[in-house]
Amino acid sequence: MTAPGSRAELSDLPLRADLRGRSPYGAPQLDVPYQLNTNENPYPPPPELVADITAATAEVAATLHRYPDRDAVALRTDLAAYLSSATGLELSTANLWAANGSNEILQQVLQAFGGPGRSALGFEPSYSMHPIIAAGTRTEWAPTPRRADFSLDVAAAVAVLAERAPDVVFVTSPNNPTGQSIPLTDLRALVEAAPGVVVVDEAYAEFSPQDSAVHLIEEFPTRVIVSRTMSKAFAFAGGRLGYLAAAPAVVDALLLVRLPYHLSSLTQAAARAALRHAEGTLASVHRLAAERDRVAHALRGLGAEVVPSDANFILFGHFDDPAAAWQSYLDRGVLVRDVGIPGHLRVTVGTPEENDAFLSASKEIV
Amino acid sequence: MTAPGSRAELSDLPLRADLRGRSPYGAPQLDVPYQLNTNENPYPPPPELVADITAATAEVAATLHRYPDRDAVALRTDLAAYLSSATGLELSTANLWAANGSNEILQQVLQAFGGPGRSALGFEPSYSMHPIIAAGTRTEWAPTPRRADFSLDVAAAVAVLAERAPDVVFVTSPNNPTGQSIPLTDLRALVEAAPGVVVVDEAYAEFSPQDSAVHLIEEFPTRVIVSRTMSKAFAFAGGRLGYLAAAPAVVDALLLVRLPYHLSSLTQAAARAALRHAEGTLASVHRLAAERDRVAHALRGLGAEVVPSDANFILFGHFDDPAAAWQSYLDRGVLVRDVGIPGHLRVTVGTPEENDAFLSASKEIV
Repeated sequence: MTAPGSRAELSDLPLRADLRGRSPYGAPQLDVPYQLNTNENPYPPPPELVADITAATAEVAATLHRYPDRDAVALRTDLAAYLSSATGLELSTANLWAANGSNEILQQVLQAFGGPGRSALGFEPSYSMHPIIAAGTRTEWAPTPRRADFSLDVAAAVAVLAERAPDVVFVTSPNNPTGQSIPLTDLRALVEAAPGVVVVDEAYAEFSPQDSAVHLIEEFPTRVIVSRTMSKAFAFAGGRLGYLAAAPAVVDALLLVRLPYHLSSLTQAAARAALRHAEGTLASVHRLAAERDRVAHALRGLGAEVVPSDANFILFGHFDDPAAAWQSYLDRGVLVRDVGIPGHLRVTVGTPEENDAFLSASKEIV
Repeated sequence: MTAPGSRAELSDLPLRADLRGRSPYGAPQLDVPYQLNTNENPYPPPPELVADITAATAEVAATLHRYPDRDAVALRTDLAAYLSSATGLELSTANLWAANGSNEILQQVLQAFGGPGRSALGFEPSYSMHPIIAAGTRTEWAPTPRRADFSLDVAAAVAVLAERAPDVVFVTSPNNPTGQSIPLTDLRALVEAAPGVVVVDEAYAEFSPQDSAVHLIEEFPTRVIVSRTMSKAFAFAGGRLGYLAAAPAVVDALLLVRLPYHLSSLTQAAARAALRHAEGTLASVHRLAAERDRVAHALRGLGAEVVPSDANFILFGHFDDPAAAWQSYLDRGVLVRDVGIPGHLRVTVGTPEENDAFLSASKEIV
């Protein structure tokens, strides 16, 4: 059987010119023994959390003929409670917003504060979705390099912000795929220099000892937006729950661009269940941070260059041919990530067994 | 306690100029005895479906630390099987695409085929999200009026398409909020006249006797896109599952603009469970269609003007003051929708009991 319409090719479509020749985003989803390529938390939800999610979705399932709460008030209240407890601040429901993954959060932010005729600046290498979402929202992308060691030269960054005056600045802390965090004092300097909105992408914040940029919201209410996700520390990548903290007016602005009913009843219920188990889940963060330091130390012992990391992954090298090294790892059942940085690969910190498998392979490859 | 950043107002933000002064989309979500305002299916999922969704989500919950299948292949395969059985065509996985509600489907379509410098045309009054999503993707919106009786003048539409040459055309069939379907022969005439992509929004198709525009995909593979939802006939509004059928190349194009991992593992699993129960769920469609005809007949008996409907709602009038009439219904515990069409209100077809309550109130209001 041939699928209806198969004779048409992508090049036959009246597609936007800027999409022609592009390839879809994404790391390979391969079935291998050791999946250390997408910075997932290796610890599955414990049985009590699975039971709670199941009970929550069972309750919601009986009302799925009705639309979800369009503004996800209960979930946002729970997120505010979690983030208050994590930061020591007193955040309210009005400070929080949630969406299907932080990608959708960032897309909404750029729909409100970026878009045609506006620009967004990021310090590269950083999260590869930032320029992709900028392109998707037709926001001009202004990449600015980090130092050769991937740290951020704050003085240089301040000068660039003053000169280029971007409407939106992305600061990823800890930075993906390199791992370094940015201290609050440096963040403040960046926000003071930026004329527009500063989005601090804290997808990996729970793994870092640095204070959250949430502390800057009261000081810079019109310009600081902190993006977060439950994918990593909360081991909830499959649940797709991104969120942000900002001044209430920023959340009001996002209500103007969000698609109504964007967040399903199931997502809201399951995320709330996961938040009820935060304490248990976040215990894995400490285990992973300790494993990260063990793996980094062992890699250095093998002679590798290891970029200091505050996250649940490590960027390391130096490889003359990272693509070949990536394949060598894969041949040994270890899937790491070639993030396109010359000489480097990125490995997610897994369970001790997974990390041992990675280190064992590294002995032959590094 | 005051929320951090509360002193900032929306007007203080560096928001895009075109968003200033706008209000968020949305029907009121009020807790009233008879909710007949958002075209939900009034029949809750039966116990066996609730059990199946619960079992499916329980299985998925144990793996939520992993990202979902980015391309939702199993779900798209099930959607293809359903749509094949519904239309008598042989659709394949490659013909289907899914997202968080048809709103996200339509946003992705406009990101790929609309956007800055491009235009989208719709025949109004129609689904109010079409111009909103056009604005969100910075696609110029070209509204074109229907006849005074809300039917589509196909000859006039063909002329308008030739003259204005929009990049994207929206045709809603059955049309929301008016109810009329468009026969396949008329759709073909529109597609032949349109220079770009024609999106046939079939959110309410299961309630209509007309053939689906899916029948036109093989004939017009580069230009026909059929958008659907599980919110209405499948009674799955809370699950947020929109989908489309098109040529495989169109699906390839959407892969270029979709946010990676946009569809959670829970959504994919729950939607697949709902599709397994399609036969049972869709039995409600026949009951609702019969109730629709009963309500329409009764409304006419009360002297109301009733627009012929192939959907699960009815547009009716004439009210000198629809806002006052809307309030009169609400005072009687019946929430209907003021869709902004002069002289008219829209009522969703509910259970026989809900419809009786609506008709009882109508005796005093119409």
